[in-house]
Amino acid sequence: MPVLLAPPEAPLLPELLREANVVGLDCEIAAFHEPMPRIRGLGSLLHAGETEISFLANPKLADQLAQCRAAAVILTPEAWQTLSDTPPTWHVVLCSQPYLMYALLAQWFDRHRIANLPTGIHPSAVIHESARIEAGVSIGPHCVIEAGAVIAAGTRLGPACIVGAGSVIGADSLLHARVTLYHGVHIGARSILHSGVVLGADGFGFAPMPGEQAGAWAKIAQIGGLVIGDDVEIGANTTVDRGALDDTRIGNGVKLDNQIMVAHNVVIGDHTAMAACVGVAGSTQIGSRCTIGGASMISGHLVLADDVHVSGGTAITSNVSKPGRYTGVFPFGEHRDWQRNAAVLPQLAQLRRRLRRLEDAGPAAGQAKDS
Amino acid sequence: MPVLLAPPEAPLLPELLREANVVGLDCEIAAFHEPMPRIRGLGSLLHAGETEISFLANPKLADQLAQCRAAAVILTPEAWQTLSDTPPTWHVVLCSQPYLMYALLAQWFDRHRIANLPTGIHPSAVIHESARIEAGVSIGPHCVIEAGAVIAAGTRLGPACIVGAGSVIGADSLLHARVTLYHGVHIGARSILHSGVVLGADGFGFAPMPGEQAGAWAKIAQIGGLVIGDDVEIGANTTVDRGALDDTRIGNGVKLDNQIMVAHNVVIGDHTAMAACVGVAGSTQIGSRCTIGGASMISGHLVLADDVHVSGGTAITSNVSKPGRYTGVFPFGEHRDWQRNAAVLPQLAQLRRRLRRLEDAGPAAGQAKDS
Amino acid sequence: MPVLLAPPEAPLLPELLREANVVGLDCEIAAFHEPMPRIRGLGSLLHAGETEISFLANPKLADQLAQCRAAAVILTPEAWQTLSDTPPTWHVVLCSQPYLMYALLAQWFDRHRIANLPTGIHPSAVIHESARIEAGVSIGPHCVIEAGAVIAAGTRLGPACIVGAGSVIGADSLLHARVTLYHGVHIGARSILHSGVVLGADGFGFAPMPGEQAGAWAKIAQIGGLVIGDDVEIGANTTVDRGALDDTRIGNGVKLDNQIMVAHNVVIGDHTAMAACVGVAGSTQIGSRCTIGGASMISGHLVLADDVHVSGGTAITSNVSKPGRYTGVFPFGEHRDWQRNAAVLPQLAQLRRRLRRLEDAGPAAGQAKDS
Repeated sequence: MPVLLAPPEAPLLPELLREANVVGLDCEIAAFHEPMPRIRGLGSLLHAGETEISFLANPKLADQLAQCRAAAVILTPEAWQTLSDTPPTWHVVLCSQPYLMYALLAQWFDRHRIANLPTGIHPSAVIHESARIEAGVSIGPHCVIEAGAVIAAGTRLGPACIVGAGSVIGADSLLHARVTLYHGVHIGARSILHSGVVLGADGFGFAPMPGEQAGAWAKIAQIGGLVIGDDVEIGANTTVDRGALDDTRIGNGVKLDNQIMVAHNVVIGDHTAMAACVGVAGSTQIGSRCTIGGASMISGHLVLADDVHVSGGTAITSNVSKPGRYTGVFPFGEHRDWQRNAAVLPQLAQLRRRLRRLEDAGPAAGQAKDS
Repeated sequence: MPVLLAPPEAPLLPELLREANVVGLDCEIAAFHEPMPRIRGLGSLLHAGETEISFLANPKLADQLAQCRAAAVILTPEAWQTLSDTPPTWHVVLCSQPYLMYALLAQWFDRHRIANLPTGIHPSAVIHESARIEAGVSIGPHCVIEAGAVIAAGTRLGPACIVGAGSVIGADSLLHARVTLYHGVHIGARSILHSGVVLGADGFGFAPMPGEQAGAWAKIAQIGGLVIGDDVEIGANTTVDRGALDDTRIGNGVKLDNQIMVAHNVVIGDHTAMAACVGVAGSTQIGSRCTIGGASMISGHLVLADDVHVSGGTAITSNVSKPGRYTGVFPFGEHRDWQRNAAVLPQLAQLRRRLRRLEDAGPAAGQAKDS
Repeated sequence: MPVLLAPPEAPLLPELLREANVVGLDCEIAAFHEPMPRIRGLGSLLHAGETEISFLANPKLADQLAQCRAAAVILTPEAWQTLSDTPPTWHVVLCSQPYLMYALLAQWFDRHRIANLPTGIHPSAVIHESARIEAGVSIGPHCVIEAGAVIAAGTRLGPACIVGAGSVIGADSLLHARVTLYHGVHIGARSILHSGVVLGADGFGFAPMPGEQAGAWAKIAQIGGLVIGDDVEIGANTTVDRGALDDTRIGNGVKLDNQIMVAHNVVIGDHTAMAACVGVAGSTQIGSRCTIGGASMISGHLVLADDVHVSGGTAITSNVSKPGRYTGVFPFGEHRDWQRNAAVLPQLAQLRRRLRRLEDAGPAAGQAKDS
C-alpha cells in the first residue's frame, strides 16, 4: 500500500506541480472543475485513488484512462487530443514528457517523506570522540561510529548503521537502516546505501599451506581499502570487499541492485549498472556505462571494455574488448524435452566428427562442408 | 548438536504424545518396560540418544532400527509386524503416519523452546510514541519501532529488529533477530521472518539521463508499498523490494528460503514456494502453488501460470502459460569433456545447416530429413 | 585507500621484518642508505608510497620495479641479480619466498590494527546473566548475548553481534560487526565471521498439507543444530542453516566466501573452500579439500568425494565419486550469435536422429558412424 500524505500535508495540485518540476518542463493544468484538489500521492492509472495523481506515458495504456479514478492525470497534448469528447472526471495536466514528470513527482513525494524523518543524533548511538560528525548530520538509534570516522554534512544514517574506524561518508548521503562499513572505507557524496549492505569485508584470499600442513589454507590478510565514488546507489544485502593490497574501486554514478557480490580489487567504471544477484570475482575490471543483467557471473582477473552489456544469467569467463551485448543462457523448456536434448550435449564434439566424416565420404563432399 | 530439554522440563512419553498430537492422529504406546521415560528431544534413528524419541517414516531405513538407542520409536503397525521377535530396547509407539507425528513432535519442541524465551519489551528497544504495540507482544533488545508502526497481538520480535514508519506486522508472528522492515510494509498474521531479511527496500529503477548527462542515471523514487499475506515464511538474508508505484505483493502461505531476491512490483500467488538463491526480476507475476528450484532466475515482466514447477538452476526468460515442470540447466561433466563439447556450441547453427545440406544432397534426400 | 600506521606507531624496517617473520624465513636487508626507514604500510609495486614496503613475487612484474617508489622491496636473490647495476631508490630485502613474506607482513599489519581496537565489554551490550564470558573477551556496542551462551577466551565480537541462547564460540575467534548466531550453534576456535553472517536459521522444510488444505504447506520445525569446526572463515552475508533433526556440520579449516548459502543437514569436509555466491542444497555431503567456484549450485541429497574441484557457475546435479575438475557452463558470445545457436538446442535430439539416419542411408554407412 503506497504511503499517502495526511490531508493537511497534501499540496494543492498547482503547488505540487510547481515544486516537483525542478527542471522546468512545460507542464500546464487544463483544469475543468473547482476546487483544485489536494494531492496525497501518486499512482498508476489503474490503481490511483481519488486523492492521487497519475500519468499516461505509454500510449498502449490509453485504454486505462476510461477507468482511471485519479484526481489528475498527466499526459501529452497529442494523447489528450486523440481522446473522446466526454470530459474526464480527472483534472488534465498536459506535459510533453509525462514519464519524466512522473519521476519528478515521485522524487518530490520521497523527499517530502525523508524531510519528515526524525533528525539529530539519537542518544543510543555510540560515537567515538575522535569521529567527525559534520553539520546537519542525522544519526539513528543504535548506530556505532568508530574512531576517526568522518560523516560529512547533510548525511543521514538510519537506525543501527555501523561506520568502522577511519571510514569516510561524503555529504548528503542516505544510509538506510543497518548498513555496515568496515574500517577505512571511503564513499562519496550523495550516495544511497540500503539495509544489509556490507562494505569493506575481507576479500577471499588464501594461500595453500606447504609441507606437512598441505591441504590447509593460510589467510592472506586483506589490508587494501575500498573507495567508492559520488552518486552511487547500492542495494539491500549487497557486499563489496576491500582490496587485498591495493583498493577495490567503484566509480561515480554506479548503481548496484540487491544481493550483488563485488570481490576484492575489482574496479568498476563510472555509471555502470548491475541488476540483482550478480557476482564479480576478484581483480576484474569493468568499464564505464556497462549494464550487467541479473544473476550474471563475471569471472576473476578479466577486463570488460566500456559499454559492454551482459544479458541476465550469463557467465562471462573471458575478456570482452568490444562494446556490445553478450549472452550465454541455456534456454529452458518442458522438463522432458530438456532431458532429451541435454543428453546430446556430452556428444556434441562426437556429432561434429560424425558430420565431418559424412561430408568427406558423401557424394556432396567438397561442396557441403563449410568449415 | 540438537538442543535438549533439561530433565525437569522433559515430559513423560505419554504426556508428550498427547500434547504434540494436536490433530488427533491415531497414536498408541506399545510399551514393554517401566518406568515411562522422560523425553528430552527428538532425533533420527542413527543419532537419537537414550533420552530422545525417534521415528521410522521411510521403510528403507528399517535396518537402522537395530542400532537405534532412542528411548522410543514411532512406526507404523505394519513396520512393527515385519520386525524380528527380539524385543527392542526402545518403547514402541504405533502410528499410521509416523512422518506427520514427527512433524508434530518437532513443532512441540520448538513451541516449548519459544515459550521459554524472554517476554516483554526490553528497555533498550527504541519505540516511537505513536507506534501501536498490542497485547502480548515481545520486543527484544535494541529493536527500533518507528512512528505509526503497528505490531499486532502475540507477535514476537527478536533482538535488533527494525520496523519502519507506518509498517504493520500481523498477529502471532515471529521475527527472529535482525529483521529490517522499511516504512509502509504490511505483513500478515503468523508470519515467520528470519535474520537478515530486508523488506521494502527501494526497487532498482533508473532512467537514462538525457542530453549532456547521457550515460548517467536518474533515480526513479520508489514510492509503492509491499504487502505480504498471512502464514508467510521468509528465509535468512532474503530481500523483497517495495513497488515503484503500485505494490509488490506476496500471497498467503508463500514460503521463501534464504537469500532470495524479489524485485519491485512482483506478484507471487498463494502457497508458492521458492528454494534458496532464486532471483525474480521486476514486475513478474508468478501464479499460485508454484515451486521454484534453488538458484533459478526469473526474468522481468513475465507471467507464470499457477502450478508451474521450475527446476533448480533454470533461467526462465519467457512466459509460462501451462502448468508443468520446466528445466534449462547445462549438464556438468569432467572439465576436459565439457571443454570439447562446449566448443561446438558456437557452431550449432552451422552444424544444422551442414546437416541439412547433406540431407538435400545425399541419396536419402527427401526421406532422411524431418524438419 | 589502504590504512597506514601513524608515524610514531610505524616500526623501523628491520624491526618489522623480525616481528612479521614468525616462521623463520631467510630474510636479509641489503640496505644501501641510512637512515633505516619507518614502514607505515604495505603496497603493490605500482602503488606503494615512500613509507611503504612492497614485494616482487611474480617475475613478470619485474618491469614495475623501475617505477616503484616504495621504501623497501622484497625480492629473491635471483631476481635481484638480474636487475641492472643502477642502485634502486628502495631498500633491498632479499628473501627466497617473497609471496609468503608478503603474507606474513600483511598479517602483521592486520594484527597490529586489531590489537589497537577497543577491548572490554561495552556497556550497551546486553548479556544474559547465565552466559559465560571467558577471560580476555571483547564485546562491542549493542551486542546481545543470550542465556547460556559461551564466549571462549580471547574472542572478540564487533558491534551489534547476536549470540543466541546456548550457542558456543571457541577461543581466539573474531566476529566482525553484526554477526548473528541463532540458539544452539557451536563454532570452534580461531574462527573469523564477517558482517551479515547468519548461522543456524531454520532450514527450508515443509510438508504438503493433506486433504482440504492441499496446496498449502506445513512447517517442519527445524530442531537440529549447527556445528562448525576450528579455523573456519565465513564471508559477509553468508548463511548456514541449522539441521532439521540432525546437525548441519562444517569441518575444520573450511573457508566460505561471501553470500554463500549452505542448507540444512549439509556436511562439508575439512579444508574445503567455496567462492562467493555458491548454493548447497539440503543434506548434501561435500568431501574434504574440495574447491567450489563462485556462483556454483550443488543440488540436494548428493555426495561429492574428497578433492573434487567445481568450476565457477556450474550446476552439480548428481553424485561425484571421483576426484577431479568438473564444469558445466554455457559459453557466452555476442548476443546475435548466441541467439542463432541457442535456437538449435531444442532440436539436438532430433539432429542426432537425422545424423544417424544419414549415416545409415549414406554410402559411408557402417564406416562413418561410431556410436
